[in-house]
Amino acid sequence: MRSDRLGETLLPKKLALPVFASDALSSVAYAPDEILLTLGLAGGALAVTSSWPVALAVVAVMVVVVASYRQNVHAYPSGGGDYEVASTNLGPRAGLTVASALMVDYVLTVAVSISSGVQNAAAAFGFIRGHEVLAALVLIAALTGMNLRGVRESGRAFAVPTYLFMLAIIAMALVAVVRRTTGTLPQAESAGLELAPEPGFEQLGTLAMAFLLLRAFSSGCAALTGVEAISNGVPAFRAPKSKNAATTLLLMGAMSVTMLVSMIALARWTGVKIAEDPATQLLRDGQPVGEDYVQHTVMGQVSHAVFDGFMPGVVLVSIVTGLILVLAANTAFNGFPVLGSILARDGFLPRQLHTRGDRLAFSNGILLLAGAAGLLIVIFDASVTRLIQLYIVGVFVSFTVSQIGMVRHWNRHLAVEKDAKERRAMMRRRAINALGAVMSGVVLVVVVITKFTHGAGFAILAMLALFLLMRGISRHYERVRDELSVAEDDTSQQLLPSRVHAIVLVSTIHRPTLRALAYAKATRPSHLAAVTVDVDREATTALQEEWDRRGIPVPLTALESPYREITRPVVDYVKSIRSGNPRDLVVVYIPQYVLGHWWEQVLHNQSALRLRSRLIFTPGVMVSSVPWQLASSEGAEERMDGPVAGDVRRGGG
Amino acid sequence: MRSDRLGETLLPKKLALPVFASDALSSVAYAPDEILLTLGLAGGALAVTSSWPVALAVVAVMVVVVASYRQNVHAYPSGGGDYEVASTNLGPRAGLTVASALMVDYVLTVAVSISSGVQNAAAAFGFIRGHEVLAALVLIAALTGMNLRGVRESGRAFAVPTYLFMLAIIAMALVAVVRRTTGTLPQAESAGLELAPEPGFEQLGTLAMAFLLLRAFSSGCAALTGVEAISNGVPAFRAPKSKNAATTLLLMGAMSVTMLVSMIALARWTGVKIAEDPATQLLRDGQPVGEDYVQHTVMGQVSHAVFDGFMPGVVLVSIVTGLILVLAANTAFNGFPVLGSILARDGFLPRQLHTRGDRLAFSNGILLLAGAAGLLIVIFDASVTRLIQLYIVGVFVSFTVSQIGMVRHWNRHLAVEKDAKERRAMMRRRAINALGAVMSGVVLVVVVITKFTHGAGFAILAMLALFLLMRGISRHYERVRDELSVAEDDTSQQLLPSRVHAIVLVSTIHRPTLRALAYAKATRPSHLAAVTVDVDREATTALQEEWDRRGIPVPLTALESPYREITRPVVDYVKSIRSGNPRDLVVVYIPQYVLGHWWEQVLHNQSALRLRSRLIFTPGVMVSSVPWQLASSEGAEERMDGPVAGDVRRGGG
Repeated sequence: MRSDRLGETLLPKKLALPVFASDALSSVAYAPDEILLTLGLAGGALAVTSSWPVALAVVAVMVVVVASYRQNVHAYPSGGGDYEVASTNLGPRAGLTVASALMVDYVLTVAVSISSGVQNAAAAFGFIRGHEVLAALVLIAALTGMNLRGVRESGRAFAVPTYLFMLAIIAMALVAVVRRTTGTLPQAESAGLELAPEPGFEQLGTLAMAFLLLRAFSSGCAALTGVEAISNGVPAFRAPKSKNAATTLLLMGAMSVTMLVSMIALARWTGVKIAEDPATQLLRDGQPVGEDYVQHTVMGQVSHAVFDGFMPGVVLVSIVTGLILVLAANTAFNGFPVLGSILARDGFLPRQLHTRGDRLAFSNGILLLAGAAGLLIVIFDASVTRLIQLYIVGVFVSFTVSQIGMVRHWNRHLAVEKDAKERRAMMRRRAINALGAVMSGVVLVVVVITKFTHGAGFAILAMLALFLLMRGISRHYERVRDELSVAEDDTSQQLLPSRVHAIVLVSTIHRPTLRALAYAKATRPSHLAAVTVDVDREATTALQEEWDRRGIPVPLTALESPYREITRPVVDYVKSIRSGNPRDLVVVYIPQYVLGHWWEQVLHNQSALRLRSRLIFTPGVMVSSVPWQLASSEGAEERMDGPVAGDVRRGGG
Repeated sequence: MRSDRLGETLLPKKLALPVFASDALSSVAYAPDEILLTLGLAGGALAVTSSWPVALAVVAVMVVVVASYRQNVHAYPSGGGDYEVASTNLGPRAGLTVASALMVDYVLTVAVSISSGVQNAAAAFGFIRGHEVLAALVLIAALTGMNLRGVRESGRAFAVPTYLFMLAIIAMALVAVVRRTTGTLPQAESAGLELAPEPGFEQLGTLAMAFLLLRAFSSGCAALTGVEAISNGVPAFRAPKSKNAATTLLLMGAMSVTMLVSMIALARWTGVKIAEDPATQLLRDGQPVGEDYVQHTVMGQVSHAVFDGFMPGVVLVSIVTGLILVLAANTAFNGFPVLGSILARDGFLPRQLHTRGDRLAFSNGILLLAGAAGLLIVIFDASVTRLIQLYIVGVFVSFTVSQIGMVRHWNRHLAVEKDAKERRAMMRRRAINALGAVMSGVVLVVVVITKFTHGAGFAILAMLALFLLMRGISRHYERVRDELSVAEDDTSQQLLPSRVHAIVLVSTIHRPTLRALAYAKATRPSHLAAVTVDVDREATTALQEEWDRRGIPVPLTALESPYREITRPVVDYVKSIRSGNPRDLVVVYIPQYVLGHWWEQVLHNQSALRLRSRLIFTPGVMVSSVPWQLASSEGAEERMDGPVAGDVRRGGG
């Protein structure tokens, strides 16, 4: 997309909601399961009595976080996102912390969403069961391929499954309410089972019980991931941007809460029993159901029960749930490279990730994300329950730091604002953000404490590693910048070398060699010599004779190479020319064949490449490749600029 | 090693035998097993009645092949090897056939020897059982590491295990003879079992029976692999080279035959029962022994029986057998890169594989061999029985073509030789080689027919693929050579370009940029311009202002880049300069940072690299890197020339 046209495609609210909310809404597909099965560790009774309080606590956090982010949206209509908010208000270190947390979380969004999608799909399509890891990897590969090809969904492509998903959940809830009032609501397939506590959880003390409740709450907080997406996307909204974005955020929060509450209610009404370890925890007539028992997701069990006997309904819910989870994963595929690009701009990641309009920049980000998510899926066996332990930490680090930054933001504005009405508004906003900061801070502490040994420690370690890596990269760039900078009044760097020695490397006499000689001559050097490495006595003599026969008017020097090497004799020769004349310049001309295919390139130029990579370490030496285009290279340039790169230029940015 | 010192380390016969014969001798560790279990497909009776005839047929082939190769040794004291013999006498196509076959066989030597070594080790160290593939891969990795580090065993390191192995087998045979005459030879652990035929093999017709016997014979011919090693190594012998090599070959043949016959005898005497599918074929009291039965190798069972109760003897045989098998695999690690180097010299493989004294050349060969062998081990589950089906085809292709080449060799010499005595000798040698050719040809046909569907087809396919690949590479090199050659009387290629346009790429003003400007100026071009790509309006303006403030005496041109690209605007600009002036030369100077570590390099120069890779496709353009050595690059050159490369220079070749 041309720079001057970047602002043309803006989203109306009805399309912005599905585009930005799929991640947040999709979590209703797994958050209820995680709440119920964590509570279920202490047996079926606790799951029944405590699922409501835990769910309501999650809802409370959701309300506060949504309210807080509405302030972000108003304060940063540029769509700064948590990274910008933290960097601007709390300095680069805070920004880097948020960035590390977000990167880890993008990876987990993909891993969790895809794993959950596969799990849900398995409810309708039995053949997936037992091959979850493979199915998840295939899905990731497909997403990767799509994103590498630059296929971007329009808002419309997002809208259909997202609205269908909302519709399906709400419809399911309404049907259930009707059937419940008429007393015809069937029970879930697991309703008749008994949920036994895990060994060690039979008799919990008050503290242990509180800990378990908090752990269930932590898992339920997965429902909050993705809430920040809208605040990153403000610039994509139609004017008035901030107002529309804030309204959409509110809508999203309302939908999330409604759907979460509905799912918990439906699970309770249909008597769903769900266990972390179904084979031993679930009992039928007092006996464990064993390894053969297939535990479906809450979504799957509830839809089976509510649509009792009506398979199209069940399959529709399963498909729509799978789709929205894939969309949620895809959100990360869009967000991760953009974050990478911003971090590269700020010097925290390799600069080439920043180059916009460049396919490669985004490709690297996409491959990195896919690789990391795939690795997690393999390590954790595509188990949502195990992956969810790593999740959420990042989101809440980012929430907390960003909200603290917002408090600082309002403090700064309050220090200069005189208007009393404006000041009151700011103080109200500050209070909301402060509440948000405290609330997310508390949740963060709870998550870290309750899940540290279950996997959160691993996520924190990954964040720390990323933080250190990015800080290292940033310091490296700074060091290089300092080393390379020249004071404006320093003109010593503009001095010309006193003499120029040109050296043309010769292995045989053919067109590239003759061209290199001609080019070298055209630069009128102080000295010009052709040089060959004497690896094979006979061949060197033959070369020398042909050289003389042809009457090439440049002397040919043969360098001895007792170890039959090529690189070292040339490097030594070049050094010997410059020794004693530090202000002399040596230009080495290397004939290079240009061929059309990478596999042809492999067959050539390897000695030249190695020689170049060694010569650049020698000061005062410049290496000039003199390319010779072979017939097969014709059209290769166009092939490189293929339709894919064109797509990115047109559609990406 | 310096070229002028290559001839200093020559081997006496007593060291040459273990160095060159480990591959051939080690096959006694698996060849008897394969003969017995193939015969055992038709039940225990056939294994008893036919193991001797089959073993003796193998011995007969061995005698003929050894006799034939003694002629090669005399005719090609340069140690040509089968590839040279075939190329010289039958043309490059035959040479390439032999080369393809040898390459496949090197890979299989590693796969079979390592798998067999692991199987033997498992007899003494039970914990390996069930983890054979892993153990085999670890062994291959260790061999790869050793060979990459340039660690080469001295002849002595080979000598100890090889002689110990021979000693162990002979000692075992002697002990067995003594105990058998005194009637105290214990029976093998499987002697009490009954060997039932596989389903489908219960009642074999004459033809089917003959086919099975030939299949057993084919498997037994694995004993012949490695016989050609001595003929490759003639130059390493002490003078008189040919005579010593021929004697060593004879010794090796005698040892091989003795050991093979001993093992078959020992297996018969101790009543070893060995089956392809032990779980169902072996019966105890009429019932299959089932999956729990652990079938040891013939070597393992025989040593258990002969040294009855004396564990040190059993463990020693197991260790020594494992060691010699690893040495056999290591032979391939030495031979494969050398063959690759010869093929590269002749233009059949990428030229960089030829560069001698270059660590990289051999590294690539070693990694390729290890990768291919590892892949085979994973595919065939480290099963010697399955791998052996692919083996031998290559060896016998190579034997047959080489012996036919020898016949042609003698024909050629007979055509010019006048001396009657010499002629008689030559005719005798030709007769031996002709017999060798016929015999190996027959074996080859038998092997292909009996094993085609069992895996030999796969090996033949691999050879064919290699053959086509190498022919393609050779044709490619020829095409390029033709395209690049210049007639000696054609001086048009020496014309100078009419004008030189120098372009210096600028992104910011720092030392590398200023150096590039100075270097460009020093070449006194017709036109000199500094060029920057306007990706970001603000940054470009700032650069332009600084440029003016500093008073740099070269005009700075900003190239528009509506799509925020870097490569395309520069390429277009360069093309526009040359359009209409095809005899002009454009030199693009690109400042390049030189850093000490590869991970630092990743953080820089990426745009420059991409730009260069695109510019080389434009005719009349030369790309000059102007390196700037950062402080961290100091010492990096020495690190590249580390101790490993030094080792290869000193110890390799």
